[in-house]
Amino acid sequence: MVFIMNSLLFLVGGFLVFFMAAGFAMLEGGLVRSKNVTMQMTKNIALFSLASIFYYLIGYNLMYPLGTWAVEGVFSGVWGPGVLEAVGVTADAADDYSYATTGSDFFFQLMFCAATASIVSGALAERIKLWPFLAFTIVLTAVIYPIQASWKWGGGFLDAMGFLDFAGSTVVHSVGGWAALVGALILGPRIGKYNKEGRTVPIPGSNLTLATLGTFILWLGWFGFNGGSQLAMGTVGDVADVSRIFANTNTAAAGGAIAALILTQLLYKKPDLTMVLNGALAGLVSITAEPLTPSLGAATLIGAVGGVIVVFAVPFLDKLKIDDVVGAIPVHLFCGIWGTIAVVLTNGDASLGTQLYSIFVVGAFTVIASGIVWFILKAVVGIRVSEEDEIRGLDMSEMGMEAYPEFSKG
Amino acid sequence: MVFIMNSLLFLVGGFLVFFMAAGFAMLEGGLVRSKNVTMQMTKNIALFSLASIFYYLIGYNLMYPLGTWAVEGVFSGVWGPGVLEAVGVTADAADDYSYATTGSDFFFQLMFCAATASIVSGALAERIKLWPFLAFTIVLTAVIYPIQASWKWGGGFLDAMGFLDFAGSTVVHSVGGWAALVGALILGPRIGKYNKEGRTVPIPGSNLTLATLGTFILWLGWFGFNGGSQLAMGTVGDVADVSRIFANTNTAAAGGAIAALILTQLLYKKPDLTMVLNGALAGLVSITAEPLTPSLGAATLIGAVGGVIVVFAVPFLDKLKIDDVVGAIPVHLFCGIWGTIAVVLTNGDASLGTQLYSIFVVGAFTVIASGIVWFILKAVVGIRVSEEDEIRGLDMSEMGMEAYPEFSKG
Amino acid sequence: MVFIMNSLLFLVGGFLVFFMAAGFAMLEGGLVRSKNVTMQMTKNIALFSLASIFYYLIGYNLMYPLGTWAVEGVFSGVWGPGVLEAVGVTADAADDYSYATTGSDFFFQLMFCAATASIVSGALAERIKLWPFLAFTIVLTAVIYPIQASWKWGGGFLDAMGFLDFAGSTVVHSVGGWAALVGALILGPRIGKYNKEGRTVPIPGSNLTLATLGTFILWLGWFGFNGGSQLAMGTVGDVADVSRIFANTNTAAAGGAIAALILTQLLYKKPDLTMVLNGALAGLVSITAEPLTPSLGAATLIGAVGGVIVVFAVPFLDKLKIDDVVGAIPVHLFCGIWGTIAVVLTNGDASLGTQLYSIFVVGAFTVIASGIVWFILKAVVGIRVSEEDEIRGLDMSEMGMEAYPEFSKG
Repeated sequence: MVFIMNSLLFLVGGFLVFFMAAGFAMLEGGLVRSKNVTMQMTKNIALFSLASIFYYLIGYNLMYPLGTWAVEGVFSGVWGPGVLEAVGVTADAADDYSYATTGSDFFFQLMFCAATASIVSGALAERIKLWPFLAFTIVLTAVIYPIQASWKWGGGFLDAMGFLDFAGSTVVHSVGGWAALVGALILGPRIGKYNKEGRTVPIPGSNLTLATLGTFILWLGWFGFNGGSQLAMGTVGDVADVSRIFANTNTAAAGGAIAALILTQLLYKKPDLTMVLNGALAGLVSITAEPLTPSLGAATLIGAVGGVIVVFAVPFLDKLKIDDVVGAIPVHLFCGIWGTIAVVLTNGDASLGTQLYSIFVVGAFTVIASGIVWFILKAVVGIRVSEEDEIRGLDMSEMGMEAYPEFSKG
Repeated sequence: MVFIMNSLLFLVGGFLVFFMAAGFAMLEGGLVRSKNVTMQMTKNIALFSLASIFYYLIGYNLMYPLGTWAVEGVFSGVWGPGVLEAVGVTADAADDYSYATTGSDFFFQLMFCAATASIVSGALAERIKLWPFLAFTIVLTAVIYPIQASWKWGGGFLDAMGFLDFAGSTVVHSVGGWAALVGALILGPRIGKYNKEGRTVPIPGSNLTLATLGTFILWLGWFGFNGGSQLAMGTVGDVADVSRIFANTNTAAAGGAIAALILTQLLYKKPDLTMVLNGALAGLVSITAEPLTPSLGAATLIGAVGGVIVVFAVPFLDKLKIDDVVGAIPVHLFCGIWGTIAVVLTNGDASLGTQLYSIFVVGAFTVIASGIVWFILKAVVGIRVSEEDEIRGLDMSEMGMEAYPEFSKG
Repeated sequence: MVFIMNSLLFLVGGFLVFFMAAGFAMLEGGLVRSKNVTMQMTKNIALFSLASIFYYLIGYNLMYPLGTWAVEGVFSGVWGPGVLEAVGVTADAADDYSYATTGSDFFFQLMFCAATASIVSGALAERIKLWPFLAFTIVLTAVIYPIQASWKWGGGFLDAMGFLDFAGSTVVHSVGGWAALVGALILGPRIGKYNKEGRTVPIPGSNLTLATLGTFILWLGWFGFNGGSQLAMGTVGDVADVSRIFANTNTAAAGGAIAALILTQLLYKKPDLTMVLNGALAGLVSITAEPLTPSLGAATLIGAVGGVIVVFAVPFLDKLKIDDVVGAIPVHLFCGIWGTIAVVLTNGDASLGTQLYSIFVVGAFTVIASGIVWFILKAVVGIRVSEEDEIRGLDMSEMGMEAYPEFSKG
């Protein structure tokens, strides 16, 4: 029965996290200009699909070496007989497992890997070429994400040191954020984002209902992201923990949204919807490293700090001329770091030193690894579309298909 | 095991009801004009966030007084140590509970409180100021909703009298509807909605795919709303009841939609999509007071009556010059009343007198309490934007940000 | 406990499949021109509602004859006392059931019937009249779908022969596809789709973010569609199977999307988003007949073949001047056939002859039955709008309401 309930948690959590792929797509589709929307949709569905395939072919077994957590038969080369072996232990063997190491675990872990890749696509929107972006996605999901994730979740050295990162403020969000930051630096800002006087020119998103929908979908998915990371709900204690995680996850998002709402009202005299949306996401990322031990009050405050970080970080990045189209770096990287540090506030088992060390190690690895990949891609095939194509919009130049062909553009 | 299954029902039901926040946002975003969409999105995400925070800080313990259902530690003042206590009994203690009085109950109940607040935002759209609206939301979710909800769900006097309201046709929907009605009366109609000759001028919604999506999301969420209100699924009887509730909830929505479709065809010679959408929602509200005892046939008819009510109530409100932008008052108030009365048709334990008395008591309380709040807000800070700002649209005047900046307006 | 878990699977699977109704609506709403969007939304919500009502009144008991699987009291005439009997056995009786033959089974099966009807609406968009389309929906969901479904899932002769169709590549998808094909042939192509020289004129969809959202929602719903079709998760073996099905379903969609992405890049030098979306759906349909026995690698390849089929089938249908607005026939019919055949690749119990025979029998029945209905409708009331109305758009001519009234059309 415990096995059944644990599997069920992975399955329900997994489909909720799956739906985050739609959330990222809608958020990004709403925040880019309409001339780049078809491209952004294509990137999002393609990156999720590639993550599904390459995490299976390579990533999953890199993350959980065979013989410990791994599912035999998953990683046995592409065309060999192994690939035709089904995921999942047999039903008889499953009785012996305390965790649900069948397909449900693979399904759930895959969604985290795919979420990491989704983070990158928003920051680099409106100027990156499709295929180099997808090539980066393959390396990220097949190699970079799994290697560093194994350090914590595969029972590696960070786990042994006592690093605490419940659902992945560092392992998922900061990794996506670092990869996006390096990509944004190498790619450069969009044409017209910073004018000759060095001022930032606002480029408003084309569809804010879509961005709002995406935020709500991500918020929904996060219940699976954090709740499922309890990894078990077959006992009263586990299900009570999952319940607490749901409540804390929700309130952290609320705290982040309200903090951003109030702060933008105070700073700019007008509340800023895109900041409120990113504030909710910031709250969610901030609580992800430890959604269990905080009280509801503490969770609200942890989320609210995330919202404050985003409101200050977005103009800060602009000052550095780092052009992040959707605010992915403030939300996922900065708040991922904050959330990882905040673990020490409510969890007595956490050590600030270990948390900082792990943030640094994972960050350094991701920056170096993704930097190498971005540089190779830039040198070999080029990663940025031509100036002419960028001005014209990627939808017509790269895709030959507009997202809203009938609506006149202002 | 029973505790685990009950908690799971609250969690799954809770995330489904959470998603209704997105449904309300999309429905309202689709039915307002494009010049007010950014404001409507901001209101929806902010009201949900404020409900999350204030239902935790104040509402939950007002609704379930400590010592009966309540979770110790939730309500202990904002900054005191209590707020840092985690929601949820400890795992050991949980064994003794027949209901899941941990975080999962809080999570589930919170979503009902937030839904009540969502109902209000649609009716008052396109002319109310942001901050007074949010101030009303705080009072509604912290005080008004919990007090009257305690009368039934907190084991109060209406419950003792035998009032039956399974998932809240009265407790949730009519309360939201009454608060919206009072607000709409005090706020007055939008400029141009009724012309000098006293005729109603149709103001079409700007995005009907969004409104349709919102309706489908609300329909989906309602399975959690009604099904979760069984509060238990750890026995064969309970899970069979939840199953019956799912089937009845679905068919009531279908009945409402088809009734509105046929009726608008007959009345206006053309079927009216917005009426069909509201018809589905009307069916859902109508079955909410008793989704368990009706047969599928009876549930379809109860929902169909709801659809009929909406088709006649929308022009009726216009005749009274009560301007309800999205039809929230017909759907949630009128059908909430109808659904509460309809309990007597299929549930032998219901008394018509008690149902009517409860509708009246809850209505009188909500009208008076929300009337006082609206009047104070109107007197102190004003609740309506200036005429100039209303004509220009709230997005530019209050938010400084358009929802669809690139699309030319016709 | 087994009964509870099986019911829970039906309920969770059922609400996921329910949400596919929203997915179909968004996909179709995004792929039609903006002048026909209100009509398409109306059709989608109305067809789902009618399916709910008529599958209850007639279809369910045609599919599962009383005394075998059926729920007593469901089908007893419309106005007789039987209709007021509730769905679902009593809790006491339920103990004796190995499958969850209460409301949860009805709820789950209903969603499959409704999905079949949803498939038809996309192919015939932009030229069919509302009411004849809805009349066809009634016959399809009350009679045609249930009769052929009983042959396999009601324990009929195809089941006895050993026909294998796990979640309905043939029973659901090909039936919807055949009905759409016959309808498209009788209805004829849209004005302007094929010019005087016989060339195909592309008619781009009006809203590709909506189409992308619809695809993601369908993908999400498919976890319920295929996973729920295990019909049980009360044992370790069953839940391990459901887990495997989730993983295979996901990877088949990924395979279909990537195959379509690469193939359109190679064929047309530009990747085609609508083909990628349909490729994902093609992968999902292809794995539906057997999502359990394939390995992840095999499931990816089965889905990828589906994606290839779609890329070639869309222009092939155009060559035949069969105008399928959203690509429903390639996705649901062609890939439904492919998926049914592909069962023999991984399931040793399958016989190619039986699979082909069943595809043929179900196809012949559906073509003849739906052909008769379409012809009668065409002869009696006419099924196509006038040329003038079609050019003007169905929204103004048939509905009197635009979906996006404020946005200028280019």
